[in-house]
Amino acid sequence: MYTLYYSPGAASMLVHWVLLELGQPHSLERVDTGAGQQKRPEYLALNPNGVVPTLLIDGKPHFEAAALVTYLADRHPEASLAPAPGSAARMAYYQWMFHLANMVQPLFRQWWYPHEPAGEAHAEAVRSTVAGRIERAWQVLDAHLAENGPLLLGKTLSVADFYLVMLMRWSRAMPKPATAWPHLAAVAAQLKARPSFATLYQREGLTEWA
Amino acid sequence: MYTLYYSPGAASMLVHWVLLELGQPHSLERVDTGAGQQKRPEYLALNPNGVVPTLLIDGKPHFEAAALVTYLADRHPEASLAPAPGSAARMAYYQWMFHLANMVQPLFRQWWYPHEPAGEAHAEAVRSTVAGRIERAWQVLDAHLAENGPLLLGKTLSVADFYLVMLMRWSRAMPKPATAWPHLAAVAAQLKARPSFATLYQREGLTEWA
Repeated sequence: MYTLYYSPGAASMLVHWVLLELGQPHSLERVDTGAGQQKRPEYLALNPNGVVPTLLIDGKPHFEAAALVTYLADRHPEASLAPAPGSAARMAYYQWMFHLANMVQPLFRQWWYPHEPAGEAHAEAVRSTVAGRIERAWQVLDAHLAENGPLLLGKTLSVADFYLVMLMRWSRAMPKPATAWPHLAAVAAQLKARPSFATLYQREGLTEWA
Repeated sequence: MYTLYYSPGAASMLVHWVLLELGQPHSLERVDTGAGQQKRPEYLALNPNGVVPTLLIDGKPHFEAAALVTYLADRHPEASLAPAPGSAARMAYYQWMFHLANMVQPLFRQWWYPHEPAGEAHAEAVRSTVAGRIERAWQVLDAHLAENGPLLLGKTLSVADFYLVMLMRWSRAMPKPATAWPHLAAVAAQLKARPSFATLYQREGLTEWA
């Protein structure tokens, strides 16, 4: 049994979406991040980083969105959302999961929290710099899709694509959103057409980028 | 057969160390990052991000250090450097691998390349801010080890510990290095005592933090 601590549209959205894709029963606990609920002692006892998501698996808390969906895809292999451990495709799968976690998502942290790298006085300088760095990340991903697509692992859908589309969504109000790159736009269109996307939007109360 | 493109002491060190631990034959190709070799067309054809490591696996290039070692540990299970896929311990394993990749290593990118977040004019502000953020990351990890250690997965050694110690090494010249936290220091001492560490240092020509 799964319980997801989430905030609408945050990184928890990836875990929520994958739970829906897997057809796994789960309950939702909304965390009011606007009110700072994720920094309160009760939540920090579940997740010492004070961020969403946290997922209770059989009552025990775990965190890191990318780790959670990698584990869920392994645990429910009947949905075929990850290449089998030990298969050749597994290398590419890990590569793109860790690439998004290590090189792309951290740039969005700078976009959403521009005061973090150098303090409030330099927030505007961070925000104006990071946009171009995120664009270069899209360029690398789009070039990969152009050569090896249409999805990150070619013809095989995996949770890496859901992760990619969640990050693309975060760029929707940027000067040049991810959908400006044609192969990235095609991945987003394909995944947004899945019934799970409508359910996700309805359950999280999302409207933008529908 | 494996060929590792590396630079001494860089993130490629994790892959090198794990190859030695696994006892897998491999050849090394040194990339002169000081001369910008990782940004030249020949290297970018292997790794579009222009960073080390790249690992050729049966002649095909792959990247992202954390992804490479996760794959290698799965591919050579006889060394027991990762909990079996599907096991309960696998969740904690993914959690710490992605935590280091998503929350800790990106801070070091700001420490090593402080001009990136906001340009050269704000590099000093970034550098002075990021030190405290890295210290808070050590605090979270040390508290986890105090309660659930002595290693990241308790008594079970995994590649997550090698990843942790590589990142700890990067803090050696910081105002408060990771070894100032006792449980972190104990992990480093245990892993540095392994014969693979001496071999790694000898082969990469490393001397600091020996």
